[in-house]
Amino acid sequence: MITHSHQNAPTQYVQANGIRFGYRRFGKAGGVPLVFNMHFMGTMDHWDPAVTDGFAKEREVILFDNAGVSNSSGDVPGSVREMGANAIAFIKALGLKQVDALGLSIGGFVAQEITLQAPDLVRRLVLVGTGPRSGESMDTGTSEGKQIFGATYEHPDNLWLRVHFTPSEVSQAAGRKFLQRFRLRAKDRDPEVTEKAALEQRTAIAEWGAKHEHAWDYLKEIKQPTLVVNGSDDVIIYTINSYILQQNLPNAQLIIYPDSAHGSLYQYPELFVDHVSTFLSSADPWAP
Amino acid sequence: MITHSHQNAPTQYVQANGIRFGYRRFGKAGGVPLVFNMHFMGTMDHWDPAVTDGFAKEREVILFDNAGVSNSSGDVPGSVREMGANAIAFIKALGLKQVDALGLSIGGFVAQEITLQAPDLVRRLVLVGTGPRSGESMDTGTSEGKQIFGATYEHPDNLWLRVHFTPSEVSQAAGRKFLQRFRLRAKDRDPEVTEKAALEQRTAIAEWGAKHEHAWDYLKEIKQPTLVVNGSDDVIIYTINSYILQQNLPNAQLIIYPDSAHGSLYQYPELFVDHVSTFLSSADPWAP
Repeated sequence: MITHSHQNAPTQYVQANGIRFGYRRFGKAGGVPLVFNMHFMGTMDHWDPAVTDGFAKEREVILFDNAGVSNSSGDVPGSVREMGANAIAFIKALGLKQVDALGLSIGGFVAQEITLQAPDLVRRLVLVGTGPRSGESMDTGTSEGKQIFGATYEHPDNLWLRVHFTPSEVSQAAGRKFLQRFRLRAKDRDPEVTEKAALEQRTAIAEWGAKHEHAWDYLKEIKQPTLVVNGSDDVIIYTINSYILQQNLPNAQLIIYPDSAHGSLYQYPELFVDHVSTFLSSADPWAP
Repeated sequence: MITHSHQNAPTQYVQANGIRFGYRRFGKAGGVPLVFNMHFMGTMDHWDPAVTDGFAKEREVILFDNAGVSNSSGDVPGSVREMGANAIAFIKALGLKQVDALGLSIGGFVAQEITLQAPDLVRRLVLVGTGPRSGESMDTGTSEGKQIFGATYEHPDNLWLRVHFTPSEVSQAAGRKFLQRFRLRAKDRDPEVTEKAALEQRTAIAEWGAKHEHAWDYLKEIKQPTLVVNGSDDVIIYTINSYILQQNLPNAQLIIYPDSAHGSLYQYPELFVDHVSTFLSSADPWAP
């Protein structure tokens, strides 16, 4: 039975780790749910219904706000490690024994931390527009990223046209369609992320990105089949970091889409759902 | 109507450019055929029936020996450019106006040359285990490649276990299954490639790989939607070259499979057919 959709799933709440977590749960129940971990400054509403409802046909989808973000209480912690611990507490509070974890950008860092801290909880991992600890230009952030997040926009949503899409006509047109889809949910929208929360997220991002020797060794501990996805021209977290993830994870597949950026999943939603569903449904213990 | 299969398609001949080309043609006719370009020292028999027959369900498959190789007359030319010209002559001699081109390793170089020299002839391009002109370690060849091709093997077929698969147990087991499949065709097998032909292929490979400034600029001329595929650990043409192809081609998607090498399509034949079919069937003018 498929219950609710992206547009009408009610925001629910669960208590864990002293946090009241806001979440939404919809789709075809009974299998391993897919838990979505959001990017910097994003709320549950920033997920693309073409992606979430695409998955919901075949599996249960769980969206949530991590601690201190939007509908969830508490403070944004200063490290991804603590964000991962909060996410684990949230997942366990729902009574779940095993999930598939998907993360976008900082959500991809959190998904890695969930897997490292609670390996039995995660069946398969999907990392989109993200990178490893100490990835390329991840200590300071990219110059493009600073420019894009530092600029002002006629309409605030237009920030996402530059974060998630390339400057090409085709990509920008896809971006405008995404912005429409992401505004479709009219009722019970998530509050925007506060400036304080965004600043705290930045602290955690810098801590994750800081340069350390042998920083990628930890990836060898992630044994789960992993699918790494990115756009060809991600200027927020450079695309090469997706290649680095693939090369250093023991069991990872990489897909890079053409003429696309940080939000490649929003540019090619049907194809993304198709590729990820193939990966999640495969009986092969190796990533595909 | 599906006519013949990998195992029983007769070897046919067509004359072009002064060459008598050996080829086989099978599968579902009526659409755009998929033309396979073979690797160093390979004949039509070296293609995996799990791949070719997988495609043949939905499209016509054309295998051929390029000039001087196995069943085809003439000499192997000393440059990939001439190999491309020969391949174009062959395709046109069949009366075809448009094809999809797939190339593995040196066959991927040839597929690029076909596309550069006859852009109207090629609808979509699939490049597997290959790289650009002047790619990384493509001038001298890799140290692993020299070791692997220089060694002797108890059974000559075992060379391909080292060329196409990683040393892991899982990959080697997949390799042994591939060797069985590639020996299934009992009658009308292609003659092995002669030492002379292999030496000439090496000359062309070295010419293609030679270091030049701005060597990757030519990739911008390949406007066709392209799918680049490789294994995570290709030691014949390093995997990074697949990333370089994706980053420099204007319209390319990249897929890298885990724990796999030069012959990733032989390790994951069903998945490869699935990914490539999705790509070839897509109505999107962008690669996916």
